[in-house]
Amino acid sequence: MTDSSDTLGVVTPQTMNFDVALPLQSGAVLRDYTLMYETYGTLNAARDNAVLICHALNASHHVAGVSPSGDVGWWDNMVGPGKPVDTNRFFVVGINNLGSCFGSTGPMHLNPETGKIYGADFPFVTVEDWVDAQYRLMNALGISQWAAVMGGSLGGMQALAWSIRYPAALRHCVVIASTPKLSAQNIAFNDVARQAILTDPDFHGGHFYEHGTLPRRGLRVARMIGHITYLSDDDMAEKFGRDLRERDDYGFGYGVDFEIESYLRYQGDKFADYFDANTYLLITKALDYFDPARLFEGDLSRALASTQAQYLIASFSTDWRFSPERSREMVQALVKNRRTVSYAEIDAKHGHDAFLLNDPRYHNVVRAYFARISGELS
Amino acid sequence: MTDSSDTLGVVTPQTMNFDVALPLQSGAVLRDYTLMYETYGTLNAARDNAVLICHALNASHHVAGVSPSGDVGWWDNMVGPGKPVDTNRFFVVGINNLGSCFGSTGPMHLNPETGKIYGADFPFVTVEDWVDAQYRLMNALGISQWAAVMGGSLGGMQALAWSIRYPAALRHCVVIASTPKLSAQNIAFNDVARQAILTDPDFHGGHFYEHGTLPRRGLRVARMIGHITYLSDDDMAEKFGRDLRERDDYGFGYGVDFEIESYLRYQGDKFADYFDANTYLLITKALDYFDPARLFEGDLSRALASTQAQYLIASFSTDWRFSPERSREMVQALVKNRRTVSYAEIDAKHGHDAFLLNDPRYHNVVRAYFARISGELS
Repeated sequence: MTDSSDTLGVVTPQTMNFDVALPLQSGAVLRDYTLMYETYGTLNAARDNAVLICHALNASHHVAGVSPSGDVGWWDNMVGPGKPVDTNRFFVVGINNLGSCFGSTGPMHLNPETGKIYGADFPFVTVEDWVDAQYRLMNALGISQWAAVMGGSLGGMQALAWSIRYPAALRHCVVIASTPKLSAQNIAFNDVARQAILTDPDFHGGHFYEHGTLPRRGLRVARMIGHITYLSDDDMAEKFGRDLRERDDYGFGYGVDFEIESYLRYQGDKFADYFDANTYLLITKALDYFDPARLFEGDLSRALASTQAQYLIASFSTDWRFSPERSREMVQALVKNRRTVSYAEIDAKHGHDAFLLNDPRYHNVVRAYFARISGELS
Repeated sequence: MTDSSDTLGVVTPQTMNFDVALPLQSGAVLRDYTLMYETYGTLNAARDNAVLICHALNASHHVAGVSPSGDVGWWDNMVGPGKPVDTNRFFVVGINNLGSCFGSTGPMHLNPETGKIYGADFPFVTVEDWVDAQYRLMNALGISQWAAVMGGSLGGMQALAWSIRYPAALRHCVVIASTPKLSAQNIAFNDVARQAILTDPDFHGGHFYEHGTLPRRGLRVARMIGHITYLSDDDMAEKFGRDLRERDDYGFGYGVDFEIESYLRYQGDKFADYFDANTYLLITKALDYFDPARLFEGDLSRALASTQAQYLIASFSTDWRFSPERSREMVQALVKNRRTVSYAEIDAKHGHDAFLLNDPRYHNVVRAYFARISGELS
């Protein structure tokens, strides 16, 4: 996988089983579990070129390349040969988090304690729990320190948590379009989405698998709400405005009038087809609960006092979900601790989703940062 | 009702029946209908001191004073003796719109064509349809011209529509926290809310009355979504932040963890208890459809060319639902038409809801404006 073309080609996911119980922040214990992951590029002899990529709400271990079933990785524009995170130089690991619905142990798997599908009984997992599981994978892969841990949005929270929880285990921490904690408004959006799912009669208290149902209505509404917060007002205005969908006049009905309605309903339908409702609930709670400053009376700089990594923090001007102000809070708390921080506030119109898109200014920032890391390798 | 105390006391709503068919913008016709309204103060001999107050999504004719059942009017801080809209000087009319669930003819009433409850068969109504119905009430009350038509949010759209549709029927037009049209993001939020209701199994295509059900789940989620957009991010942060609700630690469950969750769920539950789902759908469509510039190739100044009124436009700095920028669009289009416009952009932290609150700077603007109108009376 160190070829010089710009594609990784087909990548096959791998799994690793862990039979040492994982204690979770909730007090529950995951007795054994499987993590699904992918790797791109080659671990060098010094084993110092490994980069961990953490995923956000609805993504997975499949970061780059093409899956056996033909799906392009969610950050394929960022990770690959010659790309900002250059797999000709770095050994990149993508990992699926516990509780997800894309391969690692999650609510749709069998609970070894009961022999039944977990469903709603899958334990709550936090950002820190995920990091603990990722740490074990790191050890199992024979890596003692990441060149960098990187993520956007919820993935950025994991990167930040790595730098707090395992300070010596990473040299660089790359946190994009993220926040040190959710605001009341962020929690509010998550809770409405959860309520849509929890009150869907087909949810059956999370045991819908047993009932042969799917809480599609709830998931659909949840995804529509989420999607609004991923896009900027301006971007939505530019893409959709008040354009009518395949009609010249108002329909005076509850079908589709406007393009934006068609787009959102389509996104909702698609999501309800492939995403697990219990996973959605678990991940939104992990988002809500993330707040490393909480144990330090809300003082983020104290929470970051133990860190040793260098940081790249990036935010996007029109991101109203996790606005630049949230990134600046992290920068300030790190600077207060005299950490080395690069901060980029990128003027981009695509809102929160910008972190997934191929914006040249943004990618150049990441490219330059990883070129610097590359220069430090053995 | 011209006493000098600061309260209107108990106000009894009135009804008026109309048996001349009302043609609606959808092409449908409302054969006969009833409007519920309230009045405060006394119409003067010249009949030139009447002010019409138009309501927003979930309000009613009960603008001020106390209802026989003890409810204080929704704009009681604005309208009353000695208040900004001073009922010692003005004869104020509050009216409930067609399609509402608070007294005027709406989806829960009998359809005279079928002898059955309208339900989903109640015709779509637009802002302009409401204004047409209000115009008939004006005539029936023996008023030929309003001193002012005033409203906030959707109520402001009605005031604006009055000035376009019946230019000679009002001298002043007061448009608060409003917009000349919804943005794609506004429509998106409305559509998600509608989808929550429409897909609630208890909605039964809008004929839930016949089924003895109420689509409470959908209404609850719809209201929670709406409520997020009424508050500013900062205000929510200040009021709720990440405070936990009656607990010291995270609950690791789907009950209430955070105060903001408790607040929103409570708002949703309350709303589902009293609001009609068909009304909610109808009113959000009226919001989506409002766009007076649409018949003028999107040119708002052309849409406003026929107007004769003077305007007070007010917006609130933290209102992200209908931001100050939307109000400025109206101001610019009016100025282009050489209309007399007063514009106030009020620095207030309460987001869209600020228009309902008692902010001294805001109330002083309205008070001064109505004092000026008062000086013009016979």
